[in-house]
Amino acid sequence: MSKKILFNAFIMDCASHQTPGLWAHPRNQSWRYKEIDYWIELAKIAESGYFAAIFIADVIGYYDVYGGDAKTAVKNAVQIPINDPLQIAAAAAAATKHIGFGVTASTAFEHPYVFARRIATADHYTKGRVGWNIVTSYLESGAKNVGDNGLNRHDDRYEVANEYLEVIYKLLEGSWEDGAIVHDREKRVFADPNKVHEIGHKGKYFEVPGIALTEPSPQRTPVLFQAGASEAGKKFAARHVECVFVANPSATIVRNYASDVRALANKAGRDAGALKVFSLATIIVDETDEEARAKYEEYKQYISYEGALALVSGWIGIDLSGYQPDEILKRDESNAIVSILNDLTTDGEKEWTPRKLAEWIGISGLGALFIGSPVTVADAIEAWVEKTGVDGLNIGSVISHETFADVVKYLVPELQKRGVYPTSYADGTLREKIFGRKYLPDNHPAAQYRDIEKAKKAARSDRHG
Amino acid sequence: MSKKILFNAFIMDCASHQTPGLWAHPRNQSWRYKEIDYWIELAKIAESGYFAAIFIADVIGYYDVYGGDAKTAVKNAVQIPINDPLQIAAAAAAATKHIGFGVTASTAFEHPYVFARRIATADHYTKGRVGWNIVTSYLESGAKNVGDNGLNRHDDRYEVANEYLEVIYKLLEGSWEDGAIVHDREKRVFADPNKVHEIGHKGKYFEVPGIALTEPSPQRTPVLFQAGASEAGKKFAARHVECVFVANPSATIVRNYASDVRALANKAGRDAGALKVFSLATIIVDETDEEARAKYEEYKQYISYEGALALVSGWIGIDLSGYQPDEILKRDESNAIVSILNDLTTDGEKEWTPRKLAEWIGISGLGALFIGSPVTVADAIEAWVEKTGVDGLNIGSVISHETFADVVKYLVPELQKRGVYPTSYADGTLREKIFGRKYLPDNHPAAQYRDIEKAKKAARSDRHG
Repeated sequence: MSKKILFNAFIMDCASHQTPGLWAHPRNQSWRYKEIDYWIELAKIAESGYFAAIFIADVIGYYDVYGGDAKTAVKNAVQIPINDPLQIAAAAAAATKHIGFGVTASTAFEHPYVFARRIATADHYTKGRVGWNIVTSYLESGAKNVGDNGLNRHDDRYEVANEYLEVIYKLLEGSWEDGAIVHDREKRVFADPNKVHEIGHKGKYFEVPGIALTEPSPQRTPVLFQAGASEAGKKFAARHVECVFVANPSATIVRNYASDVRALANKAGRDAGALKVFSLATIIVDETDEEARAKYEEYKQYISYEGALALVSGWIGIDLSGYQPDEILKRDESNAIVSILNDLTTDGEKEWTPRKLAEWIGISGLGALFIGSPVTVADAIEAWVEKTGVDGLNIGSVISHETFADVVKYLVPELQKRGVYPTSYADGTLREKIFGRKYLPDNHPAAQYRDIEKAKKAARSDRHG
Repeated sequence: MSKKILFNAFIMDCASHQTPGLWAHPRNQSWRYKEIDYWIELAKIAESGYFAAIFIADVIGYYDVYGGDAKTAVKNAVQIPINDPLQIAAAAAAATKHIGFGVTASTAFEHPYVFARRIATADHYTKGRVGWNIVTSYLESGAKNVGDNGLNRHDDRYEVANEYLEVIYKLLEGSWEDGAIVHDREKRVFADPNKVHEIGHKGKYFEVPGIALTEPSPQRTPVLFQAGASEAGKKFAARHVECVFVANPSATIVRNYASDVRALANKAGRDAGALKVFSLATIIVDETDEEARAKYEEYKQYISYEGALALVSGWIGIDLSGYQPDEILKRDESNAIVSILNDLTTDGEKEWTPRKLAEWIGISGLGALFIGSPVTVADAIEAWVEKTGVDGLNIGSVISHETFADVVKYLVPELQKRGVYPTSYADGTLREKIFGRKYLPDNHPAAQYRDIEKAKKAARSDRHG
């Protein structure tokens, strides 16, 4: 294997992301999510292990399917309470040099004109180390609390997201030309107004006639991340996205996803390698297999059964509170249950009960689980990458900051020794570090808006043609 | 004078806030607004001089009245390009200990459910050092670019803002009770769901049935700032706001404003002292009067005539590009011109031309201007505070970071010697430092939502009554 595996720290701005109950572990610092120093510490640890980025998931809403309300989620801190992840980037970037920040934001809650300023600001303040994880969906509870006052809800959320991105591209790639910022103190010209363009966007969902509020940031458009396993999601990823994320414990499913989305990207005119695939993994590593296994068994004591089911019930939209813990979940009852059980059925486990489900989900979400000594885990990860063809792993956090500190301490040196993991950071922005280029490539859909006057003319003749 | 004068650094997340052209001064670092280190440096300087807060103004939109487009504003960096100010708070707080961050956000662009999480997050990450400067209005250019997709525009923007604040209070004061976060590792209870309440808000503009996304932050509701000189603005301030800001060079007008708004607050049932008044001031101070005066004359060379008029034209909504520089502005031509000239007519200056207007605005915006040695400026400020009754000054930045560094070096020690300026910070949150209390007081309208179940019951009987 010659390519280097990329690691992201996969986490959320809350006490319990995908390990319900583990907040209660005596060594877990996750309740400190509300302190900015917690994030600065995390960024420094991840950077010391040459992680590509901290990938901060997000949700606006809460899990209220299980038992019909949010009580179980609240009691177990299942993704609630939750903070705004965007505010982490600038602060943690100021205390680090290289690590990127993949920040989640939905196309469903904020107007693209305002969001373009927000994400460009993050790119400025991180000196180009920001990624945007594009979310198109929402929890029903979030939508309910924003209601009709937010962006209108539409059936085809990917159609909205496509236009949302078009507006973002026009603002960030086209409105302010390279060289628009003159900063000529002698001539007293800060910016050349002839190089600042109104984008003239008039679409089905948005109308944005004017100029962008921000000057070009180091990456212009931030590195684009997305997770979306549906057909529409894959198509969207193939068209726009640079880093896709898939959460599945089955190497076969991950491999198929990776090759599908790459083939679609290819069909959309993008280069091989324009799109990096990350899969979810939980890594429990220690000096020996025995110690790692003991750690895993210890962690498992803290899984919250009801917290895990609250999480799963929210994902699948089915209230699992009516099932007995050891009742075998019948696959014909509902497609959603079938689908999640099929996802989980990797190692011959055919019969699932709520208890087994909770145990699996409670430590590793829907991802792969690697437990063992540095050699054992490195072997397993190399095999996983070989089998699936992924470019990297989004590593979940079981215990903060122990999980990432262990990976950095035990696993990274082993992978480096094998020549399959970075031993330094490339200079420059997040995109330069991951892809070796500063901006989105010329065959990316964003590129057509760089000459915005030409794009506007083309749009006009389309309308009149 | 026994009370201590409060200082805020008044600035914007752009290269030129209210000193058009000054960005070109060789010592001005304001173009570095896009670097987070610039803000960290500024926060450290202001904190070394015991400033209460950095007050970051904001606008979503641009000045396109002058000449009918944004070209002049763009050329002269007149509040464009501009970044998102909210992202400064966490980063600058991580590098300081005491100084507050007054961040501007409009009630016109983001839904209160989503904004509540954003501002509560800032309060968490700053450990309770955040203020929210509530803006109800917008530039037309901003509204145009968000259009109907943003929050609906309404005639009575203060009515919308009142309900907006009601939603914020319910979410931040009422949804999560004190003691809701249990964090009991033994019993495996992170939060007590019985102490987390749905707010059940059903108003004219917003419908928010559910629970807040965030756990209580150090201040719950951040310190509330506002500037609004209209009658509706004053009424709003009197009802809700803790720190009001007025920009006027006339001591008489400022005095009348301060006593009006205090009387209105009193009428609204709030205590004397519940509301601190800040007025805008520009301070140019050096070792001697001569050196300070020379500095002022040097600064003036950099004022951009057209930049200043672009700013004023945007404020008054009248395009001043048609006037000759030395043409006397007739006061009967338009109410808006009369009004701004009346504001500026302080020191016997009766005849205003665009050139004179630009010269005044270019250094000191619409505020007072103090120039001289530490003794001269301290005398003038003491007299100003005596005459106007303000509690503090929002100090504009002419040259970054020179203006604030000079104030800290020359003026602060002189004021401290006189016993009229803080010599230390109080412990705790921004509200504790300014008002000596952690939360909004019990006679503030927010307090009624602390027992949210009672408030909901009252609202129901109102509806059925």
